[in-house]
Amino acid sequence: LSNKLRAAGFRTGVFKTGPGNQLSDVPGNLVGNLTLNDAQVQTGVTVIIPAPDIYNNKLPAACHVINGYGKTTGLLQITELGNIETPIVLTNTLSVGTAYQALVRHMLKEVPFIGIEACSVNPVICECNDGYLNDIRGLHIKEEDVLQAIEAASADFDEGSVGAGRGMSCHGLKGGIGSSSRVIPAGDKEYILGTLVLTNHAKIEELRIGGVHIGEELSQYAGAESPFKGSVIVIIATDAPLDSRQLGRICRRASSGLARTGSIIASGSGEIAIAYSTANRITHRPEDAAAEMKTIHEDLLDPFFAGTVEAVEEAVLSSLFEAKTVEGRDEHLRRSLTEVLEESGISPW
Amino acid sequence: LSNKLRAAGFRTGVFKTGPGNQLSDVPGNLVGNLTLNDAQVQTGVTVIIPAPDIYNNKLPAACHVINGYGKTTGLLQITELGNIETPIVLTNTLSVGTAYQALVRHMLKEVPFIGIEACSVNPVICECNDGYLNDIRGLHIKEEDVLQAIEAASADFDEGSVGAGRGMSCHGLKGGIGSSSRVIPAGDKEYILGTLVLTNHAKIEELRIGGVHIGEELSQYAGAESPFKGSVIVIIATDAPLDSRQLGRICRRASSGLARTGSIIASGSGEIAIAYSTANRITHRPEDAAAEMKTIHEDLLDPFFAGTVEAVEEAVLSSLFEAKTVEGRDEHLRRSLTEVLEESGISPW
Amino acid sequence: LSNKLRAAGFRTGVFKTGPGNQLSDVPGNLVGNLTLNDAQVQTGVTVIIPAPDIYNNKLPAACHVINGYGKTTGLLQITELGNIETPIVLTNTLSVGTAYQALVRHMLKEVPFIGIEACSVNPVICECNDGYLNDIRGLHIKEEDVLQAIEAASADFDEGSVGAGRGMSCHGLKGGIGSSSRVIPAGDKEYILGTLVLTNHAKIEELRIGGVHIGEELSQYAGAESPFKGSVIVIIATDAPLDSRQLGRICRRASSGLARTGSIIASGSGEIAIAYSTANRITHRPEDAAAEMKTIHEDLLDPFFAGTVEAVEEAVLSSLFEAKTVEGRDEHLRRSLTEVLEESGISPW
Amino acid sequence: LSNKLRAAGFRTGVFKTGPGNQLSDVPGNLVGNLTLNDAQVQTGVTVIIPAPDIYNNKLPAACHVINGYGKTTGLLQITELGNIETPIVLTNTLSVGTAYQALVRHMLKEVPFIGIEACSVNPVICECNDGYLNDIRGLHIKEEDVLQAIEAASADFDEGSVGAGRGMSCHGLKGGIGSSSRVIPAGDKEYILGTLVLTNHAKIEELRIGGVHIGEELSQYAGAESPFKGSVIVIIATDAPLDSRQLGRICRRASSGLARTGSIIASGSGEIAIAYSTANRITHRPEDAAAEMKTIHEDLLDPFFAGTVEAVEEAVLSSLFEAKTVEGRDEHLRRSLTEVLEESGISPW
Repeated sequence: LSNKLRAAGFRTGVFKTGPGNQLSDVPGNLVGNLTLNDAQVQTGVTVIIPAPDIYNNKLPAACHVINGYGKTTGLLQITELGNIETPIVLTNTLSVGTAYQALVRHMLKEVPFIGIEACSVNPVICECNDGYLNDIRGLHIKEEDVLQAIEAASADFDEGSVGAGRGMSCHGLKGGIGSSSRVIPAGDKEYILGTLVLTNHAKIEELRIGGVHIGEELSQYAGAESPFKGSVIVIIATDAPLDSRQLGRICRRASSGLARTGSIIASGSGEIAIAYSTANRITHRPEDAAAEMKTIHEDLLDPFFAGTVEAVEEAVLSSLFEAKTVEGRDEHLRRSLTEVLEESGISPW
Repeated sequence: LSNKLRAAGFRTGVFKTGPGNQLSDVPGNLVGNLTLNDAQVQTGVTVIIPAPDIYNNKLPAACHVINGYGKTTGLLQITELGNIETPIVLTNTLSVGTAYQALVRHMLKEVPFIGIEACSVNPVICECNDGYLNDIRGLHIKEEDVLQAIEAASADFDEGSVGAGRGMSCHGLKGGIGSSSRVIPAGDKEYILGTLVLTNHAKIEELRIGGVHIGEELSQYAGAESPFKGSVIVIIATDAPLDSRQLGRICRRASSGLARTGSIIASGSGEIAIAYSTANRITHRPEDAAAEMKTIHEDLLDPFFAGTVEAVEEAVLSSLFEAKTVEGRDEHLRRSLTEVLEESGISPW
Repeated sequence: LSNKLRAAGFRTGVFKTGPGNQLSDVPGNLVGNLTLNDAQVQTGVTVIIPAPDIYNNKLPAACHVINGYGKTTGLLQITELGNIETPIVLTNTLSVGTAYQALVRHMLKEVPFIGIEACSVNPVICECNDGYLNDIRGLHIKEEDVLQAIEAASADFDEGSVGAGRGMSCHGLKGGIGSSSRVIPAGDKEYILGTLVLTNHAKIEELRIGGVHIGEELSQYAGAESPFKGSVIVIIATDAPLDSRQLGRICRRASSGLARTGSIIASGSGEIAIAYSTANRITHRPEDAAAEMKTIHEDLLDPFFAGTVEAVEEAVLSSLFEAKTVEGRDEHLRRSLTEVLEESGISPW
Repeated sequence: LSNKLRAAGFRTGVFKTGPGNQLSDVPGNLVGNLTLNDAQVQTGVTVIIPAPDIYNNKLPAACHVINGYGKTTGLLQITELGNIETPIVLTNTLSVGTAYQALVRHMLKEVPFIGIEACSVNPVICECNDGYLNDIRGLHIKEEDVLQAIEAASADFDEGSVGAGRGMSCHGLKGGIGSSSRVIPAGDKEYILGTLVLTNHAKIEELRIGGVHIGEELSQYAGAESPFKGSVIVIIATDAPLDSRQLGRICRRASSGLARTGSIIASGSGEIAIAYSTANRITHRPEDAAAEMKTIHEDLLDPFFAGTVEAVEEAVLSSLFEAKTVEGRDEHLRRSLTEVLEESGISPW
């Protein structure tokens, strides 16, 4: 479980975390990592499976482009139809096409009538550019790698320098996969909201941990340039009954969580949020002309918004705390936050 | 000048402030306040004049809806045409129509051919709901009040519980008008970016000052309920040559500044950002078929984005530091931050 | 009832019309006109009441900006919250503020807790510029006129040169209010979709009636310049259970209906579509944390889209056929289509 | 050259066509087709090259999603940065990833520093679903096919059942690639606006040619079901100096052109417009902090809008007139419009 950050003393916000403090606290959600780690090749794939049989029973979904310097696929249809019908694949920028083809192949196998009865499929591929550590021009991700990440999907998954996070940099340090969750009350019920981030954004000088602006001081220990360029992907899952419009509102709070660790949403950053709810399923074919859908009243959404901000802040920091130092292409090095904290003797608490 | 916050020891960010640390550091920008302060009536009008003769020589402009629980007018045309052609009026929610009519009347007087040669005018009116302190149902703002605020516009203006800010609440304390500015380098030049906010948003529990989360502790001293409901308006001016698309990118960074003081963008909050540049003027009628427009290269925008985040954070805090305690409708009270800090002995520094 | 167009021989599309071929075929929908007709003063107000007690029981709603050269208010909140909570008022561009204040006053009277319990209200005012026929600079609309139009609302209403349509021009001829409706099948049920337009857009040269491009020939008889400038407002109501995302999709088909009569969406045109459904009501305060909402399956929407295109095309033409010749400001004249057809001997059938 | 439609007697609109009545009338624009035609395999690739050396000297660009049931990549970055930096590849839905990887490989070869200096690339891949005629599940497009289409790019190109259009259906008939252009006056200059469409949308019953609704009658001759499902891609090029905001306005007129041939924008249709201008180039790296950009005055845009509507209408019809009957997967047949017109004796003129 994802506890290094909590073990180090971090607390944020007013809501308690889910049992695993990860995306997979939302029932049915699985995450799979496939990591390539071989000298110049520091890259990988992370797959999020939001629900079983998701094509035939789609989930209400939404997305938000915080900053559009990015190549994520699938957002047009999520926006138009308000649903998601495939797993989500995260990988490096120049391998988006390979991931798309792999996911197509996976879906064709799962759903025999795609492509036959005027049926299409909307692959959702998100990316960040890991070219600082990874020989991204080598196009090392193969379709097989994506299929293996799908196979590997589990409720129990690693964070940090794994999967699509292998080659990523965050706040000038080693970034990657982070995750966190919150328990959100609404009426007399409690719901889970989980988030998973792929962090590859922001400068070290801007870094804040628990509001404490230690980045300026830390920057002399990081040992490598820290450009504004980079990106961050935010996936948000919940079992609360929210429709796509409401999920869009949740997506738009992701950037407030990112701001808490110091992001200014740099010009060269692709920052994308995608949210879905597992509480209502949308059948691929209409069983009845009209279906009933449960939705939480708008006046009860603030805790979901606050919880999103908290969980995104914590997921970004978790990606830093779980990451290990990685050396990659051309002796480029990204040091882990824990190593730098230890060496410098600086502490945010 | 707006120095209480700085005098108290506050510093944020890497850019130096403009000479007055206010919106009016951007040459040509004027601000006028008209305050109604009479027992149940605690409301007013604030007018921003972005440039002289703005109808005939419009400014490139953009806007962004952070959260659309708001009634601001004029955003459709700013978005479509990428320009602004009137002063901006801020007032309370239920007086938007009165402000619209007053601004129409002002523009008809200034520009004799509006309404004659198939010419229209796009009044920009922004609002927050001051109903907690103000008898907002009384519709006390008159057209004359708006015209007086226009008359009063000056480069030297007050912040805090004045003008449209008179009845507003921010983080459970007395909010209102705040302003800040930054000097932004680009190439071998320096530009000014100024911001003015009308703050009426967020809970006290969430308040952070300079990253220090003192809201929880302060909340017992504030002495009144602090609902999530409320709104915030952010006006951003610059003399840097930016086109409307780029100004839109700047608007989308306003929410990162708001996040720094603790906002989670509540469901019932109308949060709107408007930005304009005074560096290029767009003639109402075409003088030539095609005009030259200067624009800064995209790779040089990050300092503008970082400066926006800094200035918005500081402007929100300035609205709190400049505000004075106000008692209004039905003995409703909003205390000033400085009073509460003093009484509680709590300090963010 | 609105039958001049049908009586003249016009048919379009595959769906049958509702009983009155008007917006008010949607149960509960009422329309009220207040017309000012006095020499230089040729203007007015049209009010659409989508449902009784709409503030306490809001309707799912959406909007779409076809072209944003317009000053419509209320769209931000419709987009954010996906509902509508007031009647819709149509009037001339420079009287939007007066209409806003009148609608505020009406709502304050209807709902005593607006402005008290942190409650706001979102007035929806749409406009076109009738300055060619009307002394629009005179600001002749008074709040009382709007309240009278609300009072006058009825399921039985006039089209053409009435209400807000009094001073409007469409395709170089006399435009104004038009309406049409369709019966749409979905599963084993039938639903009503009604539309009302305020037409003030497009050139006569572009005019097509039933696909027949007679505008070029007609233009010599119209007797006045026909600039591209102008606007058109499209209101769409249905009793089918659609959520706000789906209603947004319907709004985006309005422009296809406008295209059928020859519109090219001119640069100076404010073209706005608003749609709502009366099938689900959203309580102002949450009665339960989560409510059930019925929505039609996405695969069954095409007939609603096709019906929208048909009804909008017919409503625009109905505004022309129902209009009477109007002489207004400075001897400006807009002739009625029927007069011009008769005089010229040209027929589209 | 593309003259079958004109030879058949078709005329539309007020502007004269460019010399070739194709997209490539815009100087520098090239189009390449690669067609796969082998029994079950009826598919292909079409490449549009907007300008030479487009990565280092990007073009101002914009896009618009008419209906988002589609999988086009690259739109996020076009929207954010307002430029295009690669050729545009059109192909079938399930081969988007292959096209993405091929275009990445092409760009890596052309630009050695992509992936090295924190540089990314934004591949623009558009698609329609040709699964009715093509064995789309077979994933027959290979990266090599895309590279060959790039190689084949020329100012002189075929329309109809070629390239990405090989397996497409339009209005229940054989669709595919269509193109048209217009000469647009602005001030004392003339500019070219060209469009290329990939048509795979709409029902035959809705078909209008020159406004004449002959689809209903034709439908009995088409000989195959004609579902609403399908998509259409619209590419618009011009040598007029327009910025990205203005190009976005042009994109939003594409749907008016589609409406003229009878489209209702079906629910299952991915309808995307992309526009770019070759008149200003944006250097990849800033040469100066601020660059001069020429833009046409907003008041002169209406002819560009009208010309877009005309050219899109004509391009759709040209795709039908240039197409030949194709038999593909499982004996599925799409007949050509010319064949059906001849057999039925029906004529739109």
